[in-house]
Amino acid sequence: MSLKTQYILDALHKLFKGNTKELHKPFFAGNEKKYLEDCINSSYVSYVGKYVQEFEQSLCKFTGCKRAIVFSNGTSALQIALIAAGIKAKHEVLLPSLTFVATANAISHAGAIPHFIDSREYDLGIDPDALESWLRYSTIKKNGECINKKTNRVIKAVVPMHTFGHPSSMEEIIKISNDYNLLVIEDAAEAIGSFYKGVHVGNFGIAGVLSFNGNKTITTGGGGAIITNDLLLADTARHISTTAKIPHQWEFIHDQVGYNLRMPNINAAVGCAQLEQIKSILENKRLLFDKYENAFKGIEGIKVIKEPSNCSSNYWLQGIIIDKNLAYLRDEILEETNKVGISSRPIWRPLHLLKPYLNCPAAPLPQAKDLYSRIINLPSGVDVL
Amino acid sequence: MSLKTQYILDALHKLFKGNTKELHKPFFAGNEKKYLEDCINSSYVSYVGKYVQEFEQSLCKFTGCKRAIVFSNGTSALQIALIAAGIKAKHEVLLPSLTFVATANAISHAGAIPHFIDSREYDLGIDPDALESWLRYSTIKKNGECINKKTNRVIKAVVPMHTFGHPSSMEEIIKISNDYNLLVIEDAAEAIGSFYKGVHVGNFGIAGVLSFNGNKTITTGGGGAIITNDLLLADTARHISTTAKIPHQWEFIHDQVGYNLRMPNINAAVGCAQLEQIKSILENKRLLFDKYENAFKGIEGIKVIKEPSNCSSNYWLQGIIIDKNLAYLRDEILEETNKVGISSRPIWRPLHLLKPYLNCPAAPLPQAKDLYSRIINLPSGVDVL
Repeated sequence: MSLKTQYILDALHKLFKGNTKELHKPFFAGNEKKYLEDCINSSYVSYVGKYVQEFEQSLCKFTGCKRAIVFSNGTSALQIALIAAGIKAKHEVLLPSLTFVATANAISHAGAIPHFIDSREYDLGIDPDALESWLRYSTIKKNGECINKKTNRVIKAVVPMHTFGHPSSMEEIIKISNDYNLLVIEDAAEAIGSFYKGVHVGNFGIAGVLSFNGNKTITTGGGGAIITNDLLLADTARHISTTAKIPHQWEFIHDQVGYNLRMPNINAAVGCAQLEQIKSILENKRLLFDKYENAFKGIEGIKVIKEPSNCSSNYWLQGIIIDKNLAYLRDEILEETNKVGISSRPIWRPLHLLKPYLNCPAAPLPQAKDLYSRIINLPSGVDVL
Repeated sequence: MSLKTQYILDALHKLFKGNTKELHKPFFAGNEKKYLEDCINSSYVSYVGKYVQEFEQSLCKFTGCKRAIVFSNGTSALQIALIAAGIKAKHEVLLPSLTFVATANAISHAGAIPHFIDSREYDLGIDPDALESWLRYSTIKKNGECINKKTNRVIKAVVPMHTFGHPSSMEEIIKISNDYNLLVIEDAAEAIGSFYKGVHVGNFGIAGVLSFNGNKTITTGGGGAIITNDLLLADTARHISTTAKIPHQWEFIHDQVGYNLRMPNINAAVGCAQLEQIKSILENKRLLFDKYENAFKGIEGIKVIKEPSNCSSNYWLQGIIIDKNLAYLRDEILEETNKVGISSRPIWRPLHLLKPYLNCPAAPLPQAKDLYSRIINLPSGVDVL
């Protein structure tokens, strides 16, 4: 083992007092059991129930969005957000290559084609300069639409993803998107509790999407939400994800191909209890960042990933980024930490390198590949401290 | 109000002792709360957890299938079953027009085109004679494939649906499907606990799909399952519904466009508790059928819907079928029963009459339209007795 890896291991052992640590562990210290018991007592466990309504209202209040619609998972929420925003088959949708595969899957499920953009080290999100220069170089405007010169397809939207909870540069991305007539749908799956210049993420585009998977800041078992200030988009999303049924006293009339993707009441019940505790969860995660920063401060070439300026990140997933000349140590660090029960993982393999997305349109992606070789995530749950 | 409607109302009032009744109400008298509490205590609430495994194993045991994979809902389970069975974009898939819209939606989500077949009064499922004569008239065989002569597309599969839990005529449907090289995927969303000649439905085709929606015989809040005896299909379904991730110690490698549609552990926990009680639930539903039959026996022109011979139905949804010459009374009966708090509804509007499916290929559908005008569902939950 290299000396550098040994230093890292020593720092982690000291921080965790020799204990093993998982990457994520959900934290339940509130009304979860009480609300679940109430669901069973009331017999409201399915798509209709007071916790669904309460969770949607609480999400609006917490994020400052006008409307929230909850789903069985974040991928489905993003798929429906795209469809409700008007994304159609064969549209291209821009997204970072450096994201979890669900972002591209949701675009594919909506019938559209992922088109990859580079990320940058500063906030681990879409690089606004790379986005702007790629659009200038590779597209033309025709009838107000942004056309990919190579494929002749309409580029309709951009989906920034707030990596590990750190907000992407929304001001720049929104400006460029307006210039090129692109819709913005924020993949905020990792970012509940993250604010960009004081505004909760998901409020910048036409819609944002949250996830409540078991590994997220708060969980509903499995779940997701669309948050939006666009009332028409909200109505459309709710309608098509509830089998597109037209209200009628008894007849079953459905006016388009619909989906059945809503969040059940029992999952929303857990969500209500979790959201009540989010402030202390977020405080804990900021504290954990401080502890990591303190633990690694003497080790040259290792930097703990920090929120961008003017932002308040939820610090969903903690991580370090190693200097380029130490990138060769990534796998050794992963191996040695996991060997002693301190869970770690690299960032996702950039999507343009995965078999299903190899042939998708893509801008040059040097930074995505570089960042992939240098980022390591570390235990991030409330149980770590 | 007509005299006939008055007789029906009187019979229902007498049966329910003047109480109001919902159409469906889930029944929780077992370990639901205990297992949910265990999930929260263990912190396993998401896609990994012992209840997911236990529920899948219990479903195998109960249905006699080799494998079960649980999903966030039945529509998604059917979509994945179709994809895993090899249904591709532009394939046509046969289904009854007289089914809930989810059957056609799942086929559409798989990229295929619904192709409607008539149903019959005997079992409310696909009419085998209509199926056979339509295939003989409208298709040709080319390279072993069944080709729709009019559209030139491959007809790849048939999806029988077991209406209200009553098994379709699987022996005849399987024979015809074999003759025409069609795969059979059973939509058994309504039919957990239903047996055709002693074998649980879902065992006749290459796969079957169950639903655990809140209105079903047993519920998980929202949920569904694929049951199958085809191990390759089971592996494929599990893989693509879990983001198609290749096992690796830490790398995120996905080998195809995947989905995130698995059932969370908290929903499976409710499912485990529910499945423990299914015998008594099924007994209660058979008893309710007897009571309805007894209640209506003096009323001419009204028949309580009964399981086909050689079958044991779960009697998920109870209903009556009125004689053709009384069809004009359907809406009056619906109105008067709902007015006094006895929930009732017609069968689904046949799908070929709905806007999204108006232009799909279809056989002649006289029986579907006729049955639609004469079937009324009545309160069916365990709470009714």
